Amino acid sequence: MSLERIRLQNLHNKVISAEQAAQFIKDGMTVGMSGFTRAGEAKAVPLALIASAKTNPVKISLITGASLGNDLDKQLTEVGALARRMPFQVDNTLRKAINNGEVMFIDQHLSETVEQMRNNTLKRPDIAIVEAVAVSEDGYIIPTTSVGNSASFIEFANQIIIEINTSVSTEFEGVHDIYIPESRPNRGPVPLINVDDRIGTKGIKFDPEKVVGIVFSDIPDSPSTVTDPDDETQAIADHIIAFFEKEVEQGNLPKNLAPLQAGIGSIANAVLTGFKNSSFEDLVMYSEVLQDCTFELIDAGKMKFASGCSMTLSEKCGERVFGNLTHYKDKFILRPQEISNHPELVRRLGIIGINTALEFDIYGNVNSTHVSGTKMMNGIGGSGDFARNAHLAIFVTKSIAKGGTISSVVPMVSHVDHTEHDTDILVTEQGLADLRGLAPRERARVIIDNCVHPDYRNALNDYFDRACAKGGHTPHLLKEAVQWHTNFEETGKMLP
Amino acid sequence: MSLERIRLQNLHNKVISAEQAAQFIKDGMTVGMSGFTRAGEAKAVPLALIASAKTNPVKISLITGASLGNDLDKQLTEVGALARRMPFQVDNTLRKAINNGEVMFIDQHLSETVEQMRNNTLKRPDIAIVEAVAVSEDGYIIPTTSVGNSASFIEFANQIIIEINTSVSTEFEGVHDIYIPESRPNRGPVPLINVDDRIGTKGIKFDPEKVVGIVFSDIPDSPSTVTDPDDETQAIADHIIAFFEKEVEQGNLPKNLAPLQAGIGSIANAVLTGFKNSSFEDLVMYSEVLQDCTFELIDAGKMKFASGCSMTLSEKCGERVFGNLTHYKDKFILRPQEISNHPELVRRLGIIGINTALEFDIYGNVNSTHVSGTKMMNGIGGSGDFARNAHLAIFVTKSIAKGGTISSVVPMVSHVDHTEHDTDILVTEQGLADLRGLAPRERARVIIDNCVHPDYRNALNDYFDRACAKGGHTPHLLKEAVQWHTNFEETGKMLP
Repeated sequence: MSLERIRLQNLHNKVISAEQAAQFIKDGMTVGMSGFTRAGEAKAVPLALIASAKTNPVKISLITGASLGNDLDKQLTEVGALARRMPFQVDNTLRKAINNGEVMFIDQHLSETVEQMRNNTLKRPDIAIVEAVAVSEDGYIIPTTSVGNSASFIEFANQIIIEINTSVSTEFEGVHDIYIPESRPNRGPVPLINVDDRIGTKGIKFDPEKVVGIVFSDIPDSPSTVTDPDDETQAIADHIIAFFEKEVEQGNLPKNLAPLQAGIGSIANAVLTGFKNSSFEDLVMYSEVLQDCTFELIDAGKMKFASGCSMTLSEKCGERVFGNLTHYKDKFILRPQEISNHPELVRRLGIIGINTALEFDIYGNVNSTHVSGTKMMNGIGGSGDFARNAHLAIFVTKSIAKGGTISSVVPMVSHVDHTEHDTDILVTEQGLADLRGLAPRERARVIIDNCVHPDYRNALNDYFDRACAKGGHTPHLLKEAVQWHTNFEETGKMLP
Repeated sequence: MSLERIRLQNLHNKVISAEQAAQFIKDGMTVGMSGFTRAGEAKAVPLALIASAKTNPVKISLITGASLGNDLDKQLTEVGALARRMPFQVDNTLRKAINNGEVMFIDQHLSETVEQMRNNTLKRPDIAIVEAVAVSEDGYIIPTTSVGNSASFIEFANQIIIEINTSVSTEFEGVHDIYIPESRPNRGPVPLINVDDRIGTKGIKFDPEKVVGIVFSDIPDSPSTVTDPDDETQAIADHIIAFFEKEVEQGNLPKNLAPLQAGIGSIANAVLTGFKNSSFEDLVMYSEVLQDCTFELIDAGKMKFASGCSMTLSEKCGERVFGNLTHYKDKFILRPQEISNHPELVRRLGIIGINTALEFDIYGNVNSTHVSGTKMMNGIGGSGDFARNAHLAIFVTKSIAKGGTISSVVPMVSHVDHTEHDTDILVTEQGLADLRGLAPRERARVIIDNCVHPDYRNALNDYFDRACAKGGHTPHLLKEAVQWHTNFEETGKMLP
């Protein structure tokens, strides 16, 4: 225990054990918990809940920022504690329960969860459990490595549990900028014009009366496991960098491009890492998650500033950044996910969004979430917040998967998360398709010629030719449109 | 000729005939023209172009606000003058050419066209042709019944043709509010907080040097043909009004609801007309098109203010409103469509958007544009601008079409314009499905139970049950998912 981290003295008597805190979580409750991409989730309290649920079963609705670390979603699923889960997850056990219909999963645009609570279109949490570095003497909860939806959970919940994580340096104070949009009507603009603008407070204002317990923990975030670029991800990165170089040359983009957003994962990581040896300068990031590559670009002098709502680093990168916070502190900022992903700001700033597709079709519709149109992978996350309103919406994927039995470019996607209205650039290791200003038949030509793996090009050309012969603005042969997917289900291969 | 409408004296010598003006439109040019939902399009110049194209063929890219009146799209198609067309249309002849692949149609979110031009992701017009009431002595072009994209076309084009329509009263001056977002980077917020805020200028600022001709015309807008509610549209309206009443009762919405947006057409018209006898008060509208029902609500004292980018009225309503502009002038405003549909404002204002679906599926995905997944109807229009960022996104359709051979609720839509992430409420004459906060399997239950026509309910239940038995977050039987559509193609009926 480090009571000096509770600088609001009259809260000292609220310190309880994780086990005691877990007792406040009752069957049927809606729980709003911190945590975004395995960063900054409450840990001791949910672990105590998991332990107690083994003998005293509970079912809760769990709402977080995004995915959780420390296998919490796995363990919560295993003890049967999850009735409902939103707005994102990445856990294999939970995923199975979702696809079995055992856990009701609500797959949301990440900017919308707390907006919907504010407007009473989504149930507000009964209790908020938020990881913090400290409680300041002037009455702020200082979050740790993510802000996520925590600020609004604390506002909306009737009961608050604060989990102070002593493994996170108190130097984290000053990293956050907490701004919550006003209620409607008469809401004003979000007053952010540059990615490094500070528009809010250093922490989350809260009502001390609502605090039912303060718990101490020293469990660290789960480190991210970054994979080095392989030949394909490197090729994707090269195509994107070459495209940006051409855009700068043609005067369509300035030398510092536009604020960058990148989804989590190895492809986005390869692309951003590729900037290190590029001619671009003074890059800035306005994204959800700050990853290793963000700080590598900062270290390389290529990136001036990065704004996110969470930071998910590898063990090695974490040591460097968290060990030198005074050095990095003026180069990044963590905001609520409603602000990091806000459509108003994505459009105003003119963001370049780079996100991963599971598959896309010859007309540019993107499936980010559903395997074979039915099975949930992770969720749409922030990709829709960014793609819809971005200056440039870029989607990337390897052209084939599972040893070539799957083509990521298909006649018709089996599930649509991003419509052709919202996708500008598609990239595989084969090449880049620039869809801007093109009609569907033109898009198909560009996509097939540039993105498809050679093993599937003839088949797609054949489909497209026969569909065009039949006619339509977006020519399709409905009887065959998802046949590649059903082939795969039946034979393990999309094509014989 | 009424030279007093050209109050910038040094432009008097720019007056030419429509035939002369049409000569400025050369083969291969991109033409930016005024016009939105059959209101305020340039008329004399395109008609002269059509006449001349019969002997001197041209092919142009035509970009407007939205659809054109006076059969211009029809005639332009018939003379083969359209190579490309964006971002919206409603003409039967053009539709056929689009579906035959003869005209390349780019179906865009209506808020995005000029933003993409500003960012050089879409080619800027070579020439702008804009209908006007007058040119003011202080250098503004005063638009007529629509603003659409005209302000930005005038900014971007190298040549400008002004078409002064003397059939439109000069009292129209003062109705418009022209605001164009700043270029990036360092763009500020759009400073609009209330629907009646004036944030711009009374007309379109322009460079007189770019004006190559001023043409006079007195051709009126094509009047809208409003159909009275039938039993089904009335039932849809009743369901929506009852829903709003419940929301107010439960404290989720105030008595004046939220700024309303309604798509064009008979269903939206029935819904809005339904408000006349409701208990709601002080309604406001923030929409694209102001229709008869808007002014009926104003006349009934139910609506305080309406903001749009165009007004499309029936002959009778037009006489009343245009004949009494001084009475109505402080009750409505016309803005650029980039502002009427701006995601920043749709989210800030918390709009309730009511738009028409062609079909929707049991998980809440909506098809607004493509018959059988292939044939374009009109285009997505502004429905995506609103639905994505709205406080409530409501989609309406009759449960069956074509004498019951088609169910508008299907296992899987044949084309997706709005994903289940973006749809809150679905309504048919059968009932209303409230999807807020529900997982896909829960959505399916609510949609089938409330929206489906009895003739199709058993078949959809059967599909859903068998799909659930197979599993998945969004259970589907891919082999059958679009079979209802292929049945219809082959037999003229979705079900035997």
